[in-house]
Amino acid sequence: MLFMVEMDVNIPHDFDPAQADRIKAEEKAYSQTLQASGVWRHIWRKAGLYSNVSIFDVESNAALHDLLIALPLYPFITMTVTPLCRHPSAIHEDDR
Amino acid sequence: MLFMVEMDVNIPHDFDPAQADRIKAEEKAYSQTLQASGVWRHIWRKAGLYSNVSIFDVESNAALHDLLIALPLYPFITMTVTPLCRHPSAIHEDDR
Amino acid sequence: MLFMVEMDVNIPHDFDPAQADRIKAEEKAYSQTLQASGVWRHIWRKAGLYSNVSIFDVESNAALHDLLIALPLYPFITMTVTPLCRHPSAIHEDDR
Amino acid sequence: MLFMVEMDVNIPHDFDPAQADRIKAEEKAYSQTLQASGVWRHIWRKAGLYSNVSIFDVESNAALHDLLIALPLYPFITMTVTPLCRHPSAIHEDDR
Amino acid sequence: MLFMVEMDVNIPHDFDPAQADRIKAEEKAYSQTLQASGVWRHIWRKAGLYSNVSIFDVESNAALHDLLIALPLYPFITMTVTPLCRHPSAIHEDDR
Amino acid sequence: MLFMVEMDVNIPHDFDPAQADRIKAEEKAYSQTLQASGVWRHIWRKAGLYSNVSIFDVESNAALHDLLIALPLYPFITMTVTPLCRHPSAIHEDDR
Amino acid sequence: MLFMVEMDVNIPHDFDPAQADRIKAEEKAYSQTLQASGVWRHIWRKAGLYSNVSIFDVESNAALHDLLIALPLYPFITMTVTPLCRHPSAIHEDDR
Amino acid sequence: MLFMVEMDVNIPHDFDPAQADRIKAEEKAYSQTLQASGVWRHIWRKAGLYSNVSIFDVESNAALHDLLIALPLYPFITMTVTPLCRHPSAIHEDDR
Amino acid sequence: MLFMVEMDVNIPHDFDPAQADRIKAEEKAYSQTLQASGVWRHIWRKAGLYSNVSIFDVESNAALHDLLIALPLYPFITMTVTPLCRHPSAIHEDDR
Amino acid sequence: MLFMVEMDVNIPHDFDPAQADRIKAEEKAYSQTLQASGVWRHIWRKAGLYSNVSIFDVESNAALHDLLIALPLYPFITMTVTPLCRHPSAIHEDDR
Repeated sequence: MLFMVEMDVNIPHDFDPAQADRIKAEEKAYSQTLQASGVWRHIWRKAGLYSNVSIFDVESNAALHDLLIALPLYPFITMTVTPLCRHPSAIHEDDR
Repeated sequence: MLFMVEMDVNIPHDFDPAQADRIKAEEKAYSQTLQASGVWRHIWRKAGLYSNVSIFDVESNAALHDLLIALPLYPFITMTVTPLCRHPSAIHEDDR
Repeated sequence: MLFMVEMDVNIPHDFDPAQADRIKAEEKAYSQTLQASGVWRHIWRKAGLYSNVSIFDVESNAALHDLLIALPLYPFITMTVTPLCRHPSAIHEDDR
Repeated sequence: MLFMVEMDVNIPHDFDPAQADRIKAEEKAYSQTLQASGVWRHIWRKAGLYSNVSIFDVESNAALHDLLIALPLYPFITMTVTPLCRHPSAIHEDDR
Repeated sequence: MLFMVEMDVNIPHDFDPAQADRIKAEEKAYSQTLQASGVWRHIWRKAGLYSNVSIFDVESNAALHDLLIALPLYPFITMTVTPLCRHPSAIHEDDR
Repeated sequence: MLFMVEMDVNIPHDFDPAQADRIKAEEKAYSQTLQASGVWRHIWRKAGLYSNVSIFDVESNAALHDLLIALPLYPFITMTVTPLCRHPSAIHEDDR
Repeated sequence: MLFMVEMDVNIPHDFDPAQADRIKAEEKAYSQTLQASGVWRHIWRKAGLYSNVSIFDVESNAALHDLLIALPLYPFITMTVTPLCRHPSAIHEDDR
Repeated sequence: MLFMVEMDVNIPHDFDPAQADRIKAEEKAYSQTLQASGVWRHIWRKAGLYSNVSIFDVESNAALHDLLIALPLYPFITMTVTPLCRHPSAIHEDDR
Repeated sequence: MLFMVEMDVNIPHDFDPAQADRIKAEEKAYSQTLQASGVWRHIWRKAGLYSNVSIFDVESNAALHDLLIALPLYPFITMTVTPLCRHPSAIHEDDR
Repeated sequence: MLFMVEMDVNIPHDFDPAQADRIKAEEKAYSQTLQASGVWRHIWRKAGLYSNVSIFDVESNAALHDLLIALPLYPFITMTVTPLCRHPSAIHEDDR
């Protein structure tokens, strides 16, 4: 089951840079593990912005929630969640 | 080069149903041709809405424009266009 | 899997009243069938408005979409869809 | 009498974590007491967000107000309050 | 129990003027009956606008809903409903 | 001459609690003096919110401004000011 | 007593042009009479828009309302009304 | 050439009061100099708000920009700039 | 003096296509005349939208207004007007 | 390929002024280098605001992204990115 999640990241100016770098590294590792597992199917940067558009493939709303709140950058992210489903005109196998 | 395009379709209540069906059939054929060619890489329905999220792979802004204004349903669609690029954490080959 | 769906109904002033009544009667029958089956778990009127808040219990985003677009009043409804999950403080068995 | 209350929680980044945990524990206990009493009829998490949708069953606007401002997390919550009533199509006994 | 209701009236330009006048006369009579009964406690015009701010005194959300949807101008009104309660600084007996 | 004033109060989390209590006590005394004089004709709490709806009866825009900026909580309040006048359907003597 | 009134004019495309011209001529005459009397103190066009910013000098909210609803173009205007008063830094006699 | 400029002032709660007073005094002097010169043609307070509506008479966009960024309170002001021109119904000489 | 003007064009579905084509042809001719004269310095299409971003070089707000309201498509355009001036970092001669 | 980028700059009041000046100087140098290279084709100040409208000429969305996130002021800028293409009415060679 697919969801589009848009994430806008906003780290306060006075946040400790070393700690920010540590959290970003953890975020990257976490994201790549989920991408490798197939759960985080797509991630794109919005050009010019500290924001991404992602497609998640999960079994339930709860599974999506658990994945997202475990993001190391979660406290700094504004999330928009959009449930998706197969479009009647789709011909791609995996555009479920 | 990738773009996210969100399309909200709104056909007026008093529009001729037969003509609407004809336009929708043309739209589907047009969309499937572009999907088959690889230009229209993804299309998903937003659950519950007469809206889709699509990913286009085109050579330029102009190429995207020409594709979109040729949509048979174009006069009834509100478009939101977001230029995308590769995310530094992406591991998928084709999440350019 | 639960979803909150908010529906704002807006029938044009110049729509044929007899046809509107027929559609509303079909909507009511359709809604009550889904309520009886357990899929449409809750429906409340927003006081003073021609709007409702509903809770749906479905197996997937696609199942939700199919239910909603089959609503007889669908062309006159503005939908807002919010995926829900169990709250960590919930004690009610069925607040999944 | 039912009300939908949507709560968006936002604890500042520089708030003392130990105090935050203490307040969250009090919030949970308070919520569960009200759920057990039947006043806080439903609580759901919005998937991906630090937000909930709740249904309260109270005798008056004033009773609702007194319950909400006593929430331990109240200073960190943005509230949206929507008065509800029975929908004419409802068949559930308790969708008052 | 008090509610603030803000009503923005918008009658389409092409609506039959004679019918509009008939509906407005019915609206006025209906409003004055409810004012006389004490249910519609206050009604003010927003200066310069075809809008009013009203205070209703009803026993429940449902009672409010039934009153409002019976307004002859209801199909032409955009409603905003705000539940009120006594302010801790109030000294007026009837600012409940 | 009547004005509706909506006040949303927002005291920063890190503001000294003792000073906040002192300002709130001054605010209450100030409000009750104006209520007693008839200038602050109504004040209601918006249920669930740290906001009020008030009706002021003043001789001019300037008189209203002077009253409002003298509120002890003024620096923490977001104000919305709406000039009112008698509604043609009003029957209450004092709904000027 | 001064008010800023912003007026956005929107005449439907299918409105009879001859009638529109007649109404606009009446509007102009009405406006100029009020300008000559000193009540309509200023009127400026917003560059590029079918909108104006006006300053009215009236004795009360009710006087303002009566003037505005008598505008021949009133049914086609979206109004924004802002009560003004003398600024503490003003040196102009008539910036009351 | 005239411009309407709306200024919303927002000085942070934790800003040094003595410095704030100094800046406000400079702002007042600066404003009055420009008023005396005829460049700052009007300034009104929005009733109840820490905001003003002003009319500037300048030779160019650049002249306006230079005047505004030199305001001592500039860093604390949210500006809205609207270019104006003579209204075809205006009869006042100086409503250019 | 430069202005950015954003134009969103919206021709109603039931507008006569032949008349629409005639107006669009007039619009194009009018635009090209102004471009040739140097007044309409730039015009770009927003990719995917029936909208443009334009830069005008005019002597005054009034000159801009007169140019814009003479656009054959003016009644179908929503305008946003932004006055521009030279940026302190600009090195291009003509980015005034 | 052209993009319009609107940048709103907002440096916190409590940010070290010397460091702010250093960053602004770097920003200016960086901008002028890109202008000289032809990539940053236009930059205009929005009159009265700490904002600019810029036109970039880049080979791809990714090239745009890399340029923008390298701006020394990037952490203090809210960006709006709009992909552009040649307008069918354009006569200027370089309004691609």
